[in-house]
Amino acid sequence: MRSWVESANLADCHFSLLNLPYGVFCADSGQLRCGVAIGDQVLDLAELEAAGLLEVGADRPVFDCDALNAFMALGSSAWARARARLTELLVAGGDSALADDSVLRARALVPAASVQLHLPFEVAEYTDFYSGRQHAWNVGAMFRGPDNALPSNWLHVPVAYNGRASTVVVSGTDIRRPLGQTRKPGAAGPEFGPSRRLDFEVELGAVVGQSSVMGEPLTVAEADAMIFGYVLLNDWSARDIQTWEYRPLGPFQSKAFATSVSPWVVSRAALDPFRIPAPEPKPALLPYLQRSDSTCLNIELEVRLRPAVAARATTISRCNSRHLYYSAAQQLTHHAVGGCRMNVGDLLGSGTISGPEKHQYGSLLEITWGGKEALKLDTGETRTFIEDGDTLTLTGWAQGDGYRVGFGECTGKIGPALRKAAWGC
Amino acid sequence: MRSWVESANLADCHFSLLNLPYGVFCADSGQLRCGVAIGDQVLDLAELEAAGLLEVGADRPVFDCDALNAFMALGSSAWARARARLTELLVAGGDSALADDSVLRARALVPAASVQLHLPFEVAEYTDFYSGRQHAWNVGAMFRGPDNALPSNWLHVPVAYNGRASTVVVSGTDIRRPLGQTRKPGAAGPEFGPSRRLDFEVELGAVVGQSSVMGEPLTVAEADAMIFGYVLLNDWSARDIQTWEYRPLGPFQSKAFATSVSPWVVSRAALDPFRIPAPEPKPALLPYLQRSDSTCLNIELEVRLRPAVAARATTISRCNSRHLYYSAAQQLTHHAVGGCRMNVGDLLGSGTISGPEKHQYGSLLEITWGGKEALKLDTGETRTFIEDGDTLTLTGWAQGDGYRVGFGECTGKIGPALRKAAWGC
Repeated sequence: MRSWVESANLADCHFSLLNLPYGVFCADSGQLRCGVAIGDQVLDLAELEAAGLLEVGADRPVFDCDALNAFMALGSSAWARARARLTELLVAGGDSALADDSVLRARALVPAASVQLHLPFEVAEYTDFYSGRQHAWNVGAMFRGPDNALPSNWLHVPVAYNGRASTVVVSGTDIRRPLGQTRKPGAAGPEFGPSRRLDFEVELGAVVGQSSVMGEPLTVAEADAMIFGYVLLNDWSARDIQTWEYRPLGPFQSKAFATSVSPWVVSRAALDPFRIPAPEPKPALLPYLQRSDSTCLNIELEVRLRPAVAARATTISRCNSRHLYYSAAQQLTHHAVGGCRMNVGDLLGSGTISGPEKHQYGSLLEITWGGKEALKLDTGETRTFIEDGDTLTLTGWAQGDGYRVGFGECTGKIGPALRKAAWGC
Repeated sequence: MRSWVESANLADCHFSLLNLPYGVFCADSGQLRCGVAIGDQVLDLAELEAAGLLEVGADRPVFDCDALNAFMALGSSAWARARARLTELLVAGGDSALADDSVLRARALVPAASVQLHLPFEVAEYTDFYSGRQHAWNVGAMFRGPDNALPSNWLHVPVAYNGRASTVVVSGTDIRRPLGQTRKPGAAGPEFGPSRRLDFEVELGAVVGQSSVMGEPLTVAEADAMIFGYVLLNDWSARDIQTWEYRPLGPFQSKAFATSVSPWVVSRAALDPFRIPAPEPKPALLPYLQRSDSTCLNIELEVRLRPAVAARATTISRCNSRHLYYSAAQQLTHHAVGGCRMNVGDLLGSGTISGPEKHQYGSLLEITWGGKEALKLDTGETRTFIEDGDTLTLTGWAQGDGYRVGFGECTGKIGPALRKAAWGC
């Protein structure tokens, strides 16, 4: 299926006609509005809506907004209608209302290179799961030894913690190295200063597009229908702060300073064709977590690290979302099972995605095995953890036959910590 | 200082002239608006604002709203101005603009018994601390023995986890017993069903009234100035779900089903006169957490439990906020220290407040020592944990000389869990 936007038809283009991911961009007017990526262009949905070419059943404009939340709140039939209509307008030989209207086309199709992309939705609350089995095993083996690597609840519970929504930022936002409390091994007490073990975690984020009712659990099928789409997610982590703070209530400041997400939300509908059979969970899950189809998403993921002065980035991880043990629908089901109300704009991090091989590990903690085995970059430098000036870039795509459904990139550069003389740092 | 609203002058009235707590109520019109409790009346601030009697420096009405957030966002000088002006209008012999205008008085003063109170502010995000030393010690002693009772970080870090904002509800909201995964001691695997160890936790909640900048830590003095006020907070907890789920990432569904808060936010200004000297922390805190004045709030707290069919409630705990080791300002400072952006409407639970004596313990987990020592109620019944139909009520006040600055009540009744045949429960 070809688009008349020719750049969308290139084999390695993330934003093919079969993708149509949603985002928020800053138009020439300085106003934020919703758009869809197609090839190397951004399609301004507010222009289409104003021109009467994109009716999604809302009683007021939902795309002339600084966030996707109003559109998401309309629900899955509106999502399907928008997708069908956009396909019709963009496919070669389809409805020519946009293709043949040069004035509208000039207004509505904006070169992606010329626009600033913003956080695509207002994050209601952010929850980070821990559903990568190899990651959980690696971390457990490092801290408790290989015999007790997986926590005893892990094969039954989609383990998670609530994260901080206020510091979810869009790709491209610079990240300041956090200050915090740490305790060196063997030291009598803690010290205060910049984190020395700053890390990334490669994850997918599921975007909840519908709300649930307080006190009412969800079935897996209901939860699945509530998921609007997915983003790339980098769960920046300060390992030294985490080690000292996390007992007994879990990670807090070690994760609160920043979480980066891709500017494009790839819809569930675009990814559904890339579901593949998933292994049967053993032991069997409790009935509330069981699903009729046992599939998982087949999304290739890559992580690149580029030091400040390096000529190029080094790919430091190649993994795949198939290594997630629990699906986003199962995570959402578990999230609501006690009666927790879920809201439009809730963001669920998948947990770090690591494959079984070392080059597939999804964090520096794992790649360098707790900082013990330095990672050699293509430029000759080495890393145990992230250094100031390093840029981390996640990318991901589902591979079709001659086309891709991709996320683009999720990138962030680490800047030096703030110094505060009064605090001795 | 007496008010011409006579009921405010009674010695045991929580809503004296020196209190003036803020809330949101449903007016006759069916509209939600902001009010202040004075004696047995609610003063409609939107009416005062519309009448030109309450100018707080905003360029649009901030009290004709369904939440206090717009007013809070104006900052501490607006808070001070409103408090001074309301005092002037309500004190006997003060500005008679309200007292002498019978038409306005009839519109603006509404009997509290006739109005429905709502959640007083939109909760941006909810964080629950763990700053009650006796509580942390009790829980630690129960699970790890008295020699390792306090976690090694506890005397250095205001330990906390991110909670769920979407299920913070106002006092009076019925709470459904949560479903969830639990594992019985010695059992091979988990089971699914209603929590059997449902508990309360008595806490204060600090309401953040100003925002901070991502990446910018706060000093304790800056954090203190950002706190608008305090509420009573019941951190409902499902102990059996918590025990099974909390390793390694902390409490999640065990706390996510509900958190109840009082309808009235008592301002920081109203509570400042009730600060008393606090013991010096030993070991000394790291510089970023140190404060110039070492004081804590002296607020009496009580918890009552009333079974469904009981003629009366039994007071099951009497404690005091002086038993908190970290202040709300220190908690907020720690919360932001890594660069976490704080927002207007963030809610910080203090952590369970337990005194050193058993009758001062702030949860059933502690009172019954993990369910081993049944609690006898005045009506002859016993409890280890909360049963269906039980109503838990928190109350709290600062005691002045012949007057009180109180929170009223924070109450909630537990209803039976939902049954879902498909899930075998």
